[in-house]
Amino acid sequence: MPVPSQLYRPSLALLTDFYELTMAYAAWKSGIAGREACFTLSFRQNPFHGGFSIAAGLEHAMDLVQHLRLDEEDLAFLAEQRGADGAVLFDRGFLEALRGLEVDVDVDAVPEGTVVFPQEPLVRVSGPVIPCMLLETALLTVVNFQTLVATKAARVCLAAHGDPVLEFGLRRAQGIDGGLAASRAAYLGGCAATSNTLAGRLYGIPVRGTHAHSWVMLHDGEAEAFEAYARALPANCVFLVDTYDTLEGVRRAIDAGRRLRETGHRLLGIRLDSGDLAWLSIEARRMLDAAGFQDAVIYASNELDETIIQSLKDQGARVAAWGVGTRLVTGQGDGALGGVYKLGAVRASRAAPWQHRVKVSEQAAKTTIPGLLQVRRFAAARGFLADVIHDELLGLPASAMIVDPLDPTRRREIPADTPGEDLLVPVFRRGRRVYDPPPLDAIRARTAAQLAGFHAGVKRFVNPHQFPVGLERRLYDLRTQLVLEARGAPR
Amino acid sequence: MPVPSQLYRPSLALLTDFYELTMAYAAWKSGIAGREACFTLSFRQNPFHGGFSIAAGLEHAMDLVQHLRLDEEDLAFLAEQRGADGAVLFDRGFLEALRGLEVDVDVDAVPEGTVVFPQEPLVRVSGPVIPCMLLETALLTVVNFQTLVATKAARVCLAAHGDPVLEFGLRRAQGIDGGLAASRAAYLGGCAATSNTLAGRLYGIPVRGTHAHSWVMLHDGEAEAFEAYARALPANCVFLVDTYDTLEGVRRAIDAGRRLRETGHRLLGIRLDSGDLAWLSIEARRMLDAAGFQDAVIYASNELDETIIQSLKDQGARVAAWGVGTRLVTGQGDGALGGVYKLGAVRASRAAPWQHRVKVSEQAAKTTIPGLLQVRRFAAARGFLADVIHDELLGLPASAMIVDPLDPTRRREIPADTPGEDLLVPVFRRGRRVYDPPPLDAIRARTAAQLAGFHAGVKRFVNPHQFPVGLERRLYDLRTQLVLEARGAPR
Repeated sequence: MPVPSQLYRPSLALLTDFYELTMAYAAWKSGIAGREACFTLSFRQNPFHGGFSIAAGLEHAMDLVQHLRLDEEDLAFLAEQRGADGAVLFDRGFLEALRGLEVDVDVDAVPEGTVVFPQEPLVRVSGPVIPCMLLETALLTVVNFQTLVATKAARVCLAAHGDPVLEFGLRRAQGIDGGLAASRAAYLGGCAATSNTLAGRLYGIPVRGTHAHSWVMLHDGEAEAFEAYARALPANCVFLVDTYDTLEGVRRAIDAGRRLRETGHRLLGIRLDSGDLAWLSIEARRMLDAAGFQDAVIYASNELDETIIQSLKDQGARVAAWGVGTRLVTGQGDGALGGVYKLGAVRASRAAPWQHRVKVSEQAAKTTIPGLLQVRRFAAARGFLADVIHDELLGLPASAMIVDPLDPTRRREIPADTPGEDLLVPVFRRGRRVYDPPPLDAIRARTAAQLAGFHAGVKRFVNPHQFPVGLERRLYDLRTQLVLEARGAPR
Repeated sequence: MPVPSQLYRPSLALLTDFYELTMAYAAWKSGIAGREACFTLSFRQNPFHGGFSIAAGLEHAMDLVQHLRLDEEDLAFLAEQRGADGAVLFDRGFLEALRGLEVDVDVDAVPEGTVVFPQEPLVRVSGPVIPCMLLETALLTVVNFQTLVATKAARVCLAAHGDPVLEFGLRRAQGIDGGLAASRAAYLGGCAATSNTLAGRLYGIPVRGTHAHSWVMLHDGEAEAFEAYARALPANCVFLVDTYDTLEGVRRAIDAGRRLRETGHRLLGIRLDSGDLAWLSIEARRMLDAAGFQDAVIYASNELDETIIQSLKDQGARVAAWGVGTRLVTGQGDGALGGVYKLGAVRASRAAPWQHRVKVSEQAAKTTIPGLLQVRRFAAARGFLADVIHDELLGLPASAMIVDPLDPTRRREIPADTPGEDLLVPVFRRGRRVYDPPPLDAIRARTAAQLAGFHAGVKRFVNPHQFPVGLERRLYDLRTQLVLEARGAPR
């Protein structure tokens, strides 16, 4: 499966906010490039007012870590940059340092397809400050977007209750690989196929499609158009019936279906793309059944999302396959996950001890969590119990107490023998890759298995149950102390 | 400037919905591949409840037209596709036809940076049906997204009233070239610079950036962090002041600014990234002025968009440069333009006469406009008067009557001697490129010049004035007749 370095021709090493480079320069110039940092990528809110998110994008993120190597064009571009005084911004020596940059970082991350929650670390990067800085933006770009779309896809598939969901979004996607990455994320989130042929070729996602309104309009009539299509592609007949009059279209599809049957083929289905999908699908089902096409599937499309699908199901719509485009691939409702990459600890060198760091904010949810963060997910026989964010510097006691950082009176004791699993796995060690991303189908299966482990309340759309996620108590206490110190307030 | 074929390694010929390929196959198989079609790309609603849109994406669209050539991997992928009966879907002969596909289409399009309105053709493609079909999705992907972001950028810049707007969106963009394409579109829409270093390198957009919160947190204190940065980059000092306590941060920035001054440099400014930006900017301005830093600029960022900038200005905020990210690059409010590509006319061969085609819908705005469409924009001395959508088959009379298609009682006569200009220009003729896309800076200047030609009411955010756009009367009458025929209703 092509990762970004195989998809793009130019080097992606400059896929970074310019301030990462000016900071890297300042670090090099002021002699603190040997300082080490630990950054955590996390988000503050589930998208779509939901109760969960699906981690995605790691395979692409790993590729960006491996290819953080500036080429001559990158360096020439940086050499041209000038400050407000018109003088060259970066010393030659810095550019030489970038040319030989060693990305000797440790990366730990949550595997794609894992259910994740706000405040939890999805990716943790530690090592010399310069590569840690330079990776920030690109990691956020890839993880934010794919997690957003995987989450949306999982929600749409939950609403479809097992009906196949086809991702049809390319034409409304945000750019070319906005579309490609969305197809990948939608599939791993649960979609069954895509209309994006290139995504099919590149990522091995099944592709689907039959015909558009223009096929009908190219002919002098709808019947003629269906007949011509059926003769050419008798094993791929899902007729789009709403070019002129929908129920007339269904009648003509049935006629074409009869002729398909006579030649040993079958009408796979019809597609409704406008109008009252609930009523039209019920009428169309009745007509298809009466004509003996009980196994012809009714597809629906037209600005669908999880809310509309749920509503159509509530209305008794007889749709059995859903084409979902714009709102899926652009993550509508939100448009961005809002992930951030925050410094949790610093040390003067690889040999020195880590010091915790915290950024204060007037908004409690924006105050960062210090440390080298990990998440343990505890489980009982009937499903997942709680997640504990803990700091590897402080450790996790056998019997952990968790504290809700937004309401510290909400606490919960996890008994010592509760089975649990750390969500972040080692991905790079000193720049060496130690994790093999699974194939896309395995990620898709992980999404389904993870979702099955959570109570239905977490997955509902309206006022979802908040799955218990807390800070390990000593981490909570340390963070409180650091915030009070930063605020200069009495403890 | 790199266009998609220079940005991506794989062939982009399969960047298309699969149904375009099954339709192309059906056309080939049923012997109508010699039929010609004329398609129009247009949108139905201005995004963001606005009164205008800015056309963008044409240069990239042109590249996709020129590179619609399937390679061996594309063909091998198609050869593997199977129908519901498990048999191979496409005949070998069709794949051979695709291998030799001639994209001998005519394309006419509105230049990038043009103000455009709903229902107007942005791109018109005519020629043999197969290449016309295969281009649909890719053209929509590129034009929909870049038009969305250019429009958002123009709105944000209008709200900023001449203050520079910096695009900071990469980390929240929808994929890697979701970010690159957004930077391009944001710049042509009016932004002054980007944080996206790769977009700077590839598209020649000025890049900007100084430091993040993490720079401050890497040090033992804020003062130390500012000093270290100032020593390294004395000509690039815009200090981010809200890591711990914003006004304390401003004081420390002023201290650092004094030392910059002593060494012959100057404090460029400070950046506020959280809290009450109106109040903080007023306080910070007062402190900076009192310390003799009248020319230090206050930058603001933090989930900004045109509405928030306008509100901050109304509150007297002393911000003079705006960093706008997520909501700009993802087009928040909408997330997609919703452009469509609809068949307007068909002919049996290049030699045959065109026949008009219309697609009917229960929603009036979704009923298509038949013909080979063009737009004439009429102007008076004080600015633009009205746009007339006309059909090149029917022609445009010297004195045109325009009819609002959504309210046919709204009509307007354009006197015979009114100066006007056709918006669509020839871009390809029988597959040969006849238009050179201008450099990005020229497009950006066109956006500004076009916007200046419209009355302020068209550009306001709340209940904007609807600029008069109508169908030429004979086109309106023809469309009405075709719709009535399609509905089988009495005329």
